[in-house]
Amino acid sequence: MAERSSGAGAARAVLQRCVRATLQVRPAEHQAPAQFVQIDRGMVIYVCFFKGATDDILPKMVSTLLNLRLCESDSGKMVSVLELPGSLLVVPQATLGGKAKGRAMQYHNNIGKEDGLRLYSAFVSLCEKELTAATAAAGNVAEVTVKHGTPSSVVRGHRTVKARTVVQQCR
Amino acid sequence: MAERSSGAGAARAVLQRCVRATLQVRPAEHQAPAQFVQIDRGMVIYVCFFKGATDDILPKMVSTLLNLRLCESDSGKMVSVLELPGSLLVVPQATLGGKAKGRAMQYHNNIGKEDGLRLYSAFVSLCEKELTAATAAAGNVAEVTVKHGTPSSVVRGHRTVKARTVVQQCR
Repeated sequence: MAERSSGAGAARAVLQRCVRATLQVRPAEHQAPAQFVQIDRGMVIYVCFFKGATDDILPKMVSTLLNLRLCESDSGKMVSVLELPGSLLVVPQATLGGKAKGRAMQYHNNIGKEDGLRLYSAFVSLCEKELTAATAAAGNVAEVTVKHGTPSSVVRGHRTVKARTVVQQCR
Repeated sequence: MAERSSGAGAARAVLQRCVRATLQVRPAEHQAPAQFVQIDRGMVIYVCFFKGATDDILPKMVSTLLNLRLCESDSGKMVSVLELPGSLLVVPQATLGGKAKGRAMQYHNNIGKEDGLRLYSAFVSLCEKELTAATAAAGNVAEVTVKHGTPSSVVRGHRTVKARTVVQQCR
């Protein structure tokens, strides 16, 4: 989706619909096997908050993302993930806020760690609320869930899963 | 990576590093099994060209993407996919050019089909050239490859793989 203005905005999300998605949230260590969260049909949301982002943006942000008609129903109609109904896998992805400085990436516009964590948690809660409400309203008993990694879990799993997503605008 | 200017730019790419990535390029049909392309360690590049994009942008675009230090070497140092050396999986992803109009996505800024296909083919060729040169220069015998889907193959596989990636800027 193209930018809405010249500013960096308050947040950036990359949406990827899926028939199944798995996120490693903890690598194998010592005797403990690696841990994963997984969803079936639905959407993966990679999200990153920028400096200046506040809780105010979350309701509209969640509503926009979950109501976009990006998914195909069984009949081939374009519907939202709420209408599908599909599950959500939310991934904190600070690298989405990166800017290239030469060959290196810089993250000066990213929000601070604590504020980012708080916003991320609130974002996940809102997604859960919206998805639960939509599923209940439709009288749907399909098992749809919101799964997510935490910034620390993703960082811990980094070496193994190499999760890292970047958006590059080219002129 | 943040936008470099207020304009929509000429192209957009989403980079995702991977330890393995698989793209279904043809769904199972009749007696024929589904077909896939796969890479091991390296980077997935989702790419979309906008109206006005020309071949002129490709050399710098490919150079920028392949030289960004986004990957971790075995020693934990940040290196480019060329330095890793890693493989590339290039995916044409027209949905990256979408703009939300209410709940629907519009793609008015996307380049026309024929021009897009030509640019995409040239983009893949340039990636192959850069990767081959870098691997040879390093005297590296590791098997690194460029794999890709074609717009038509991805569209054909769409129903099955649900490949669809969107970038959303939130204010």
